[in-house]
Amino acid sequence: MSENSFDCVVIGAGPGGYVAAIRAAQLGLKTAVIEKESPGGVCLNWGCIPTKALLKAAEVLHTIKHAGEFGLEVGEPSYNFPAVIDRSLKVVDRMTSGVQFLFKKNKITLIKGHATIKNENTLSIDDGSEVSYKNLIIATGARSRSLPHLAVDGERILGYREAIRLKDKPKKILVVGAGAIGIEFAYFYNSFGADVTVVELMDHVLPIEDHEVAGVLQKSLKKQGINIKTKTSVETLQRDGNTVKATLKSGDSTEEWEGDYCLVAIGVQGNVENLGLENVGVNFDRSFIKVDKYYHTGVGNIYAIGDIIGAPLLAHVASHEGIIAAEKIAGLSPHPMDYGNTPGCTYCQPQVASVGMTEKKALEAGLEISIGKFPFQACGKAVAINETEGMVKVVTDKHTEEILGVHIVHAEATELIAEVGIARSHEAIASSVLETVHAHPTLSETVMEAMAAALGRPIHI
Amino acid sequence: MSENSFDCVVIGAGPGGYVAAIRAAQLGLKTAVIEKESPGGVCLNWGCIPTKALLKAAEVLHTIKHAGEFGLEVGEPSYNFPAVIDRSLKVVDRMTSGVQFLFKKNKITLIKGHATIKNENTLSIDDGSEVSYKNLIIATGARSRSLPHLAVDGERILGYREAIRLKDKPKKILVVGAGAIGIEFAYFYNSFGADVTVVELMDHVLPIEDHEVAGVLQKSLKKQGINIKTKTSVETLQRDGNTVKATLKSGDSTEEWEGDYCLVAIGVQGNVENLGLENVGVNFDRSFIKVDKYYHTGVGNIYAIGDIIGAPLLAHVASHEGIIAAEKIAGLSPHPMDYGNTPGCTYCQPQVASVGMTEKKALEAGLEISIGKFPFQACGKAVAINETEGMVKVVTDKHTEEILGVHIVHAEATELIAEVGIARSHEAIASSVLETVHAHPTLSETVMEAMAAALGRPIHI
Repeated sequence: MSENSFDCVVIGAGPGGYVAAIRAAQLGLKTAVIEKESPGGVCLNWGCIPTKALLKAAEVLHTIKHAGEFGLEVGEPSYNFPAVIDRSLKVVDRMTSGVQFLFKKNKITLIKGHATIKNENTLSIDDGSEVSYKNLIIATGARSRSLPHLAVDGERILGYREAIRLKDKPKKILVVGAGAIGIEFAYFYNSFGADVTVVELMDHVLPIEDHEVAGVLQKSLKKQGINIKTKTSVETLQRDGNTVKATLKSGDSTEEWEGDYCLVAIGVQGNVENLGLENVGVNFDRSFIKVDKYYHTGVGNIYAIGDIIGAPLLAHVASHEGIIAAEKIAGLSPHPMDYGNTPGCTYCQPQVASVGMTEKKALEAGLEISIGKFPFQACGKAVAINETEGMVKVVTDKHTEEILGVHIVHAEATELIAEVGIARSHEAIASSVLETVHAHPTLSETVMEAMAAALGRPIHI
Repeated sequence: MSENSFDCVVIGAGPGGYVAAIRAAQLGLKTAVIEKESPGGVCLNWGCIPTKALLKAAEVLHTIKHAGEFGLEVGEPSYNFPAVIDRSLKVVDRMTSGVQFLFKKNKITLIKGHATIKNENTLSIDDGSEVSYKNLIIATGARSRSLPHLAVDGERILGYREAIRLKDKPKKILVVGAGAIGIEFAYFYNSFGADVTVVELMDHVLPIEDHEVAGVLQKSLKKQGINIKTKTSVETLQRDGNTVKATLKSGDSTEEWEGDYCLVAIGVQGNVENLGLENVGVNFDRSFIKVDKYYHTGVGNIYAIGDIIGAPLLAHVASHEGIIAAEKIAGLSPHPMDYGNTPGCTYCQPQVASVGMTEKKALEAGLEISIGKFPFQACGKAVAINETEGMVKVVTDKHTEEILGVHIVHAEATELIAEVGIARSHEAIASSVLETVHAHPTLSETVMEAMAAALGRPIHI
């Protein structure tokens, strides 16, 4: 096999792409990854990882402000906003270096450049070279969706890519869209003293989450000082020097907003352009490539995984798809992914995490359900650590006790959801979770108690 | 049924006792609890709950000291030590009031006093009254073990009951015993600037935990400034006014220690005295009552649960035993508890949590095992929140992939262990945990990666 010839080539080094490449290499395939930017994709460079570093800074600030509640005394904290951003970028550097280390360790060739599919065995790289492949995995991801009247200029009207590196702390910012990205930035900027308004078209924040759980978050964010306008649209958005002006519409009434920044977080679109998909006949619907349950596009040995194949647009979904695609290419028989059991997380404070069906979806599916709720107010560990806001809500089948969905709003929700994923993938029912001894005192006891509540027999409420 | 006559009487209102009573009442039994102290037992009053409040204060202090790493600026923190203790006692008050609320809600009679078993249907209360029962659950718990040469005086030589309420911050303290209680207090006092020496007879701290995981903790505690002396015994311990003196022996060498306090944390003994066990012939071995798998003592309708029946002496084990005993009494068919799947937690920083067999125990059992380890250094969330110390270690059966044990040392170990309990109670194997999508970025991904490591295919190391 010549130097530029590979068993498996992956276009895109985001979490889907790099994990697929590592798994392919583990299985003995000669593997290359082609990436024009820093390895790690949106997740490591502009998304999951740096936002978590920023959000942690906001949490630490909160902890300091509330230290007196624990008998501690400390002066008013201050901060160096550019240093907060810089620290998150150091985390990014560490993680992207880690990916490069993993490529070396697994003998994966990293090709810097933009690839175009020439035919079913050849890619053209933008430096004029060619790479030949036996199998191809397209993992080019997605980017912020742009609408004509909400056009990002990258300076005052931002997408997440610009926001994550913005060292000028906004004084007054409009966040358009109350999905996970919008809400995380809103929480972050509000924590650091900005005047934040969030506009959402739907009737509650985190529109895909359970209405009741999202409601707890919405109430908390309002209490924290964030101005939240649901059922509201942005009719016009204009920049005038360092000022951004918007017209917001709710029902029949409109109002003017004016501040120094706007973040547009209204969804994403797949990066399907300039890939040469038309040269081999790979189809896409709007901006997302169509695949089968093993991520095969139906064309030659060409696969696609991650954000480029559409929702749920989550890093952990992309990585798992990458593993399945690589295993399929290597001739193994991987289990297709259970898309009904992929958790979703929002990392503001309180956090929201969920897996499975909301109450509304379960009812819409015609299921007879039981609802179990347990408030963190009644959890000993939560009281001891002074994190009593929030609840666990479980949706079970009334007859079989099947765990249809679990929805958590709490400071540590994103870690607590892990046991629910395991429970659901191993055919647990409410009683069997209840029969599993949970350590005391832990926050995880609330999951057990919510199951008990669904069965009509909670202990601590 | 007369006023003083009950279907089910529980002696002791610790977590075993009060949970048993609530479950019995839920099942329609007329129930009473007899308790001479505040409801909640050791767990709520002197153990699990107040220590977690104190440890959280230590964590907040740590967070403040490291705020600069996140780009935040704050002065040197100070503290009001009595206020730190007072806050933990407020948490205790809230939780014990909660138990009283639950008693009222479930129509459980709380009788304040000391009960002695008169016969198989009658209890004598120390106010001279009598209570008749159809079923009795003994849940009187345990207390600090006292040895003649390590006698607690309650003023300078303390057990946990005195330590938890000590408002005079120790300057120099000797902690005898490096089990969970000793280590948690050692971490707490060290965090607040005391000179702490821990003495342990065995060769590592947390002797029942996996040697390697405990080793990570031991190294961390030493780095934090705690003086740890393993394979060392206390030969003499004496108080002289406000001074405590001890002679420590390690191998052939001895050394003198002198400070202002000593905490003796060398295990516990069951509260079997003055219960009238001899009046009905309930047997005990040393200080622990013998029971069958439904907690029946073999005498009349007398059951015993919790610390009084011996190891593992854990609140969550006691509560679960309480539920099983209550269900058995009510005529249900509860599943006996799987004692191989009860988690153990230590809440210092980093925390240690485990469930199942250590590597050593698995090898002693003659099993062919695989070990999978994953360091938090390689976890994106851990890097983002600056909590990279520690690892997950899994022990699996080499042939069946059965998860024999999981051992975690990390800031959030005690929450991360929850998914492992669920996995083990639902017959998960390493591959099936790996096939369950874990949210990214979360700390729980390390559990998945450690399973992958046991299978020889981790992604991120």
